[in-house]
Amino acid sequence: MELIKRITRGNTRAIARGISVIENNSDTKEELIDGLYPFTGKAQIIGITGSPGAGKSTIVDRIIQFERNNNKKIAVIAVDPSSPFSGGAILGDRLRMQTHATDPGVFIRSMASRGYLGGISAATSGAIKVFDAAGFDTIIIETIGVGQTEVEVIELADLIILTLVPGMGDEIQAMKAGIMEIADLFLVNKSDIDGADRLKSEIEYMLMLGPENDKAHTPQIKLVSAKNNSGTEELYNTMFKQLTLFKESGLLDKRRKERIKMEIEHIFIDKLKDILNTRLNLKENMGIWIEKVYNREIRPYNFVNKKMENLKKENLL
Amino acid sequence: MELIKRITRGNTRAIARGISVIENNSDTKEELIDGLYPFTGKAQIIGITGSPGAGKSTIVDRIIQFERNNNKKIAVIAVDPSSPFSGGAILGDRLRMQTHATDPGVFIRSMASRGYLGGISAATSGAIKVFDAAGFDTIIIETIGVGQTEVEVIELADLIILTLVPGMGDEIQAMKAGIMEIADLFLVNKSDIDGADRLKSEIEYMLMLGPENDKAHTPQIKLVSAKNNSGTEELYNTMFKQLTLFKESGLLDKRRKERIKMEIEHIFIDKLKDILNTRLNLKENMGIWIEKVYNREIRPYNFVNKKMENLKKENLL
Repeated sequence: MELIKRITRGNTRAIARGISVIENNSDTKEELIDGLYPFTGKAQIIGITGSPGAGKSTIVDRIIQFERNNNKKIAVIAVDPSSPFSGGAILGDRLRMQTHATDPGVFIRSMASRGYLGGISAATSGAIKVFDAAGFDTIIIETIGVGQTEVEVIELADLIILTLVPGMGDEIQAMKAGIMEIADLFLVNKSDIDGADRLKSEIEYMLMLGPENDKAHTPQIKLVSAKNNSGTEELYNTMFKQLTLFKESGLLDKRRKERIKMEIEHIFIDKLKDILNTRLNLKENMGIWIEKVYNREIRPYNFVNKKMENLKKENLL
Repeated sequence: MELIKRITRGNTRAIARGISVIENNSDTKEELIDGLYPFTGKAQIIGITGSPGAGKSTIVDRIIQFERNNNKKIAVIAVDPSSPFSGGAILGDRLRMQTHATDPGVFIRSMASRGYLGGISAATSGAIKVFDAAGFDTIIIETIGVGQTEVEVIELADLIILTLVPGMGDEIQAMKAGIMEIADLFLVNKSDIDGADRLKSEIEYMLMLGPENDKAHTPQIKLVSAKNNSGTEELYNTMFKQLTLFKESGLLDKRRKERIKMEIEHIFIDKLKDILNTRLNLKENMGIWIEKVYNREIRPYNFVNKKMENLKKENLL
């Protein structure tokens, strides 16, 4: 596959096309991912999440600068809420993309949070493989972290950063609950405004209530003002220090293997769905079954259990 | 099953226990749901979503009052972000639950957005069946509507209401993108504060850009001040007028059948997962496979495809 070769050489247009193949679930998707697979596993994947307005973009921009100063290649996958009608990503990052348009060491890609066959998590996982195989040292996944889906996306990262800002209200902070549980680094942005220290104390208190962590696990808290570029270098160093710790303690391997497990299971389920469609002739039968369930002639579990038993009897399952 | 009988008689403790059976995915879950199934299909299900601070609770309280004045029984399922550490729901509704504690015609239940085997959507779907079979006329599902998961939860409703407030910022509004697409009723709350009319115009403009709707589909926009109880009665009447329209046009049936389809598919997939676990002896083999994929000895799709072919050859699939 010519595309694979070009991606591994870092060709920008090939990278973009590779991601499109994954997003569109094209026929060549399996071949592409399998072909890229031997070239993956080198990149460090960092997840950044936080409410809109928490300053994620500015923070990511700072990280990009530090990485470029260290001569590292960096890719950003920004997972945006989908547009109400077009289905495309709406927040976009056109401005940021323009800033770095002439630098082949930076690649920023927006992906819509909905509308992919197999889900945004699978699509992001594929995009990560493309960037990884293309030789990017660091891949940032950026999300507005709310809901189970976004938790699944952010769990594709080796290190998870949660961005919070003082004064966003308890409820909005609470929305991040699912993410708080898995964050490795709490970033209190806009540290120059009132309440930053209180927010830090609140996080500390919350962590104290949580389960005990070993040294590699202990979540860090950093006060940063991304706009004023204060605390950002320390943040940058902390990120990579934590990643080193994770590597040494085996936590990184553990996380990556957990992701592989999820991926294998997902592929199996997709294949099983195909088989079920064929064996049960779902296309023709589903409509009839729906009517019967709708009319309360059959009951959902009883019905499915019977169908499965029949397939087994006929040696079709 | 004694529990089923007691639920259909509307026994409060039995209802609570039924929902726990579903939440905990107990062994009796299938029997319970199948047993309740013939008694379902009567309740009207209304989904209310919106940012924290949009005033959903107050609106739901108003709806409860109107329903009780009309002698209707009403249940509320509040889907809350999960607690960082306990895993339970955190926003809770203890206060509201106390207000209505002595009224058997009102049942408010909080459910955490994460932590259920099968997902919050399946758990909510089960809880709806319990309330439906127990004779509740109206069931409200309340969510902070962001992300694919919450879209799936809110799509369990016959009518979807999106609550917005002026001045929450474009980005926060944009977070609702996935919901905007499917909302039947846009509720601009806090209509007494500045910007309510502008927000209404923005929604109208957005709807104009969207796909054309038939009469039953045309989303409504209502300005309400829930706190001052202004516009709430009109909102209440509009909700039920819309539901009547949906019924007459066949849209309600269409939506309910779509939900049945999803449910049948989910049950099939769950059963298939069980079979896969046994046939492939996943418990013993998964660890070995993960190591091989991790070491890049095998490639994910190639590996799964081969395994599936082998099962087929051996007539095990």
